Amino acid sequence: MPITITDIIEAHKRISFRINRTPVLTSSQINSLVGAKLFFKCENFQRVGAFKYRGATNAILLLPKEKLAKGVATHSSGNHAQALALAAREIGVPAYIVMPSNSPKVKIDAVRDYGAEITFCEPNLKARESTLKRIVSETGAEFVHPYNREEIIAGQGTAALELLSDYPELDVVLAPVGGGGLLSGTAICSKGINPSIKVYAAEPKGADDAHSSFYSDTLVPSTNPKTICDGLLTSLGELNYGYIKQYVDDILLVEDNEILSAMRLIYERMKIVVEPSSAVVLAAVIRYKKLFADKNVGLIISGGNVDLQSFFDSYKAKL
Amino acid sequence: MPITITDIIEAHKRISFRINRTPVLTSSQINSLVGAKLFFKCENFQRVGAFKYRGATNAILLLPKEKLAKGVATHSSGNHAQALALAAREIGVPAYIVMPSNSPKVKIDAVRDYGAEITFCEPNLKARESTLKRIVSETGAEFVHPYNREEIIAGQGTAALELLSDYPELDVVLAPVGGGGLLSGTAICSKGINPSIKVYAAEPKGADDAHSSFYSDTLVPSTNPKTICDGLLTSLGELNYGYIKQYVDDILLVEDNEILSAMRLIYERMKIVVEPSSAVVLAAVIRYKKLFADKNVGLIISGGNVDLQSFFDSYKAKL
Repeated sequence: MPITITDIIEAHKRISFRINRTPVLTSSQINSLVGAKLFFKCENFQRVGAFKYRGATNAILLLPKEKLAKGVATHSSGNHAQALALAAREIGVPAYIVMPSNSPKVKIDAVRDYGAEITFCEPNLKARESTLKRIVSETGAEFVHPYNREEIIAGQGTAALELLSDYPELDVVLAPVGGGGLLSGTAICSKGINPSIKVYAAEPKGADDAHSSFYSDTLVPSTNPKTICDGLLTSLGELNYGYIKQYVDDILLVEDNEILSAMRLIYERMKIVVEPSSAVVLAAVIRYKKLFADKNVGLIISGGNVDLQSFFDSYKAKL
Repeated sequence: MPITITDIIEAHKRISFRINRTPVLTSSQINSLVGAKLFFKCENFQRVGAFKYRGATNAILLLPKEKLAKGVATHSSGNHAQALALAAREIGVPAYIVMPSNSPKVKIDAVRDYGAEITFCEPNLKARESTLKRIVSETGAEFVHPYNREEIIAGQGTAALELLSDYPELDVVLAPVGGGGLLSGTAICSKGINPSIKVYAAEPKGADDAHSSFYSDTLVPSTNPKTICDGLLTSLGELNYGYIKQYVDDILLVEDNEILSAMRLIYERMKIVVEPSSAVVLAAVIRYKKLFADKNVGLIISGGNVDLQSFFDSYKAKL
């Protein structure tokens, strides 16, 4: 049965003592720049630095007892890996993570620090899936898909639930779309609370499979995506597609250079560290200004796990 | 007459509707790393991105009426310039800022955006002072010194006032020291509220004039300072020296590479943007661990105005 706002409320009760209630920040400078009132739900301050911790925690807590002890497994190059690793450790079960060998070092280190067992594979979907299959059959661990799973979607929807409980007067809610876990959770939640709220997705033009799928009658897979948003490279999930078709009003495409400018605005004006996949929502507000004029707009800032090596290298050069 | 906690409380009443009540953040990861409970007073979220807005606002609001209309002037390469510019605009008086020609572009742009009139000069103290003198005599504007002024010290002390009102149980308060405005305000405030609180300063070893002055009977000027902390290059003020001698328990020196590591920790774990001059306090806690073991430690994070060009350049290269 499809999930509803009730599942998201239940998920929130289940996970609320394990997650951070992240702050909602505003910037009068950015507001006057875009001509709207923006409310940034800062999941970069979530545990592991991304909203993914919500879904992972919810999914693990919903496993049947006999499954639980055997642990969880997934393939992910990014935030889902960290989230599942930490959630598993906190709940006291093993986590097995398959990571592409070219994953950013900062993410590999984080997964290892959270105590997960990492297996590296070739950086392609086939290798990831076959390696994961082997791990699952060897360990009996439960595969927790990063987005194509009801419990994950319900968990991710809890960010919007908090945002709308803090700011019930929002006219619009915006979330980035990659696999669609955050977006479908956000849309189910927002429309469930107030059917007249507009829900938009923001997507990089170089990885526009959600946009293509949205405007066709079938799921269009992501082929050869190219964007600085490393969290949004993946194809939309089957389940997510259904919810997005039902609840999302539109998918707004933006260019990478627009995402970069929006990201810089966030760093310089708001003094917070966000990853490119998060800045895509502000880029959409700036590009499609008219859609948001004078509105109260909620933006889900998905995470802050970004590789700062070049920044610190430039300082080291000065020592 | 020397200022006391009463002046800081009065300053806070005077400016509280014009400043941000900045949040106090914590990080369980950093706490377990250092073995103490750290409370970061985040002045990087202050208006203009630094605590300097407190002092500038207080100083302008205390000017006699006939002075006020003629405006304010200062020489500064950094946050004080932005602070005075914005505070003047908000209060509706002109601001004249003398800036060294080699100031970071991001800081020049900010001062200009805040509506101040900028005069560039050679990057040395002599040129700054003579240019300022000319501007002051031409305009009749009041010179507002960045730190060597009672009203500025009282204003900067309001950050510690808020921190101690949020967390009265602090055992230690730490602030960076450059000219000494923030440090003297923090020390007067902390000891005024609770004489048993320890107040430490953190200072880069490459700009250790406050440390040298503290351990001698006279003010030792900064000569040829070298540190990545661009906000801490300046010499300690005369007034500030007196307060620091009276109220500060010790000045802790740290190396630039320690400051850089601490800064990286803050970005990666806390997901906030801070400038090197802010990270010096965490670097001191890490280096002098034993001093802080199991204590409740307040850290004044002074600002977040950092040049992110190299970071965004590395992304641009990927487009």
